[in-house]
Amino acid sequence: MDWLLTPGPVRLHPKALQALARPQLHHRTEPARELFLKARTLLQEAFRTQGEVLILTGSGTLAMEALVLNLFAPGERVLVPVYGKFSERFAEIAESAGLEVDRLELPYGKVPTPERVARPGYAGLLLVHSETSTGALADLPALAQAFREANPEGLVGADMVTSLLVREVALEAWGVDAAASGSQKGLMCPPGLGFVALSPRALERLRPRGYYLDLTRELKAQREGESAWTPAINLVGAVAAVLEEVLPRLEAHLALKAWQNDLLYQVGEELGLLAVPEARSPAVAAFHLPEGVPYRAVKEAFARRHAVIAGGQGPLKGKIFRLSLMGHYDRYEALGVAALFKEAFADILPPS
Amino acid sequence: MDWLLTPGPVRLHPKALQALARPQLHHRTEPARELFLKARTLLQEAFRTQGEVLILTGSGTLAMEALVLNLFAPGERVLVPVYGKFSERFAEIAESAGLEVDRLELPYGKVPTPERVARPGYAGLLLVHSETSTGALADLPALAQAFREANPEGLVGADMVTSLLVREVALEAWGVDAAASGSQKGLMCPPGLGFVALSPRALERLRPRGYYLDLTRELKAQREGESAWTPAINLVGAVAAVLEEVLPRLEAHLALKAWQNDLLYQVGEELGLLAVPEARSPAVAAFHLPEGVPYRAVKEAFARRHAVIAGGQGPLKGKIFRLSLMGHYDRYEALGVAALFKEAFADILPPS
Repeated sequence: MDWLLTPGPVRLHPKALQALARPQLHHRTEPARELFLKARTLLQEAFRTQGEVLILTGSGTLAMEALVLNLFAPGERVLVPVYGKFSERFAEIAESAGLEVDRLELPYGKVPTPERVARPGYAGLLLVHSETSTGALADLPALAQAFREANPEGLVGADMVTSLLVREVALEAWGVDAAASGSQKGLMCPPGLGFVALSPRALERLRPRGYYLDLTRELKAQREGESAWTPAINLVGAVAAVLEEVLPRLEAHLALKAWQNDLLYQVGEELGLLAVPEARSPAVAAFHLPEGVPYRAVKEAFARRHAVIAGGQGPLKGKIFRLSLMGHYDRYEALGVAALFKEAFADILPPS
Repeated sequence: MDWLLTPGPVRLHPKALQALARPQLHHRTEPARELFLKARTLLQEAFRTQGEVLILTGSGTLAMEALVLNLFAPGERVLVPVYGKFSERFAEIAESAGLEVDRLELPYGKVPTPERVARPGYAGLLLVHSETSTGALADLPALAQAFREANPEGLVGADMVTSLLVREVALEAWGVDAAASGSQKGLMCPPGLGFVALSPRALERLRPRGYYLDLTRELKAQREGESAWTPAINLVGAVAAVLEEVLPRLEAHLALKAWQNDLLYQVGEELGLLAVPEARSPAVAAFHLPEGVPYRAVKEAFARRHAVIAGGQGPLKGKIFRLSLMGHYDRYEALGVAALFKEAFADILPPS
């Protein structure tokens, strides 16, 4: 398929493909250590933290679980607003880690307001920044601040899986203590790496737990440019290459991603489609299916034009469809996708 | 470096590099599901099991931990012979999982005898087939049989990280219930995937545990060609491509790997070097450093010839060096490496 319009994995950055075409590097050699440290430094800049970023071989879910396991002890009480598939996952992970989880259930598509999380008595708040399943963007700085005023000792953990490199993010400046992300979204690399960013405050609160997911052990190794377990070093090279390209012109990159996603919503509006989220993330445009149109018809209209799109998840399955230009697409390719979107819908909703 | 002679990661198979150069595939599409199922079927053949093979995004260590967590409950008693860095790791993982671990300590380089593991009262035996840190090969079928005679209900879990595709392996035929391996060794792919093979008997004993490492959840998804969490699908493609190439001529491939490793030992013998293991694995040739020669001198003599080698681990650090032709090397390249090995030692041990 020529047009990968799913909200991750995404169309790869050419620098990622180039990096992956290189001969194998052994991770316990000086060139690999330099590469690993470079990737960590660039990720630290991307997450905007004075703390540390750990690179884990695994998915974003693994990074989310590592974050929860290493910052909270069983029995501790955490608040988890649930407003989509990935915030649901955060709650499940916290439960599986033995935490006492208070879910704050919201309809899919909504995001929590600061008032709702300004409740004392919690060791932590777990939030999804860009809820990929609904296209909603939570106001992370306002939520973190409200929570921390009520819980000065509490830690804020954020899923930045589809916001890193797609929308502005910041750890300490926003009052976020820890964040998880992955390689296959805004970083435009293949899947296989998860990242855990830890603020200086989170670093002080780290407690060893688990084996593969023990971040204390990782931290010790990664400070030296190594990793506790054999890393997907080829992907680390891809991540470093993309960050080196994108970070120096991050502002323009984020502006492009915002413009591209707005363009998708604009086309949707012209077609009379209803947007799913109120507060929109630039990572993905999510639309309700038109009355009486099954998801399969939309998927097939795009597939006939060599495009892969995403459907709904959880309670939104069969009710919405999602398009994303988070991958390596420039301005003109986005305009092409806008045309493709219109043509696909001409098949589905013929002009009356 | 032109000659990657480390026992993993290894020189990549060209089919792996080709697979990795392809555009991104989305894992929730039909072509990806077909690829995933193909890789699983080929891995099932490679492990020789009528059970199932699960592909996990992570390292071999993650696969080892998943095996232990999902087959044994906290408090259960397991026997873990320790004869190298990786059997040590198996013991640590079992302890971290809350099992009651009886370590059977042996000097590094040795392997346990069947008599030593024929002890009743255990829920499981955890064994490393090819102990990469020492170059030793355990007699897995004999050990599994001896253990199971003493523990008819006990499960045998094996680390096949550097034996899969390097030496004959078999699950049920050998009395092995579960095995772990990874992509960056005999499979000649980059690191990033771990595999857990489960015999029909192990499948019946699977109990859900953890979140990312919950194999029950993985099994349900992977039977449909999906995975519970975003997989490193590009690497899955690489693994399938290499297996498709190697499995039809597996016998010749294993004979080549055995011949190549024997060649390294033969050169070592000519140079007067002492082999570390008694029972030799074809995955790696391990030699004691000559009296008074520091590891750095050997490493540098190889590096001057554009070759990367491995040193010792754990108690063998600074005492041994290791060479491996497990990667994509043909007969003539191996002869070239034999010449390189001799020349490197001519720098170190000038002819008297």
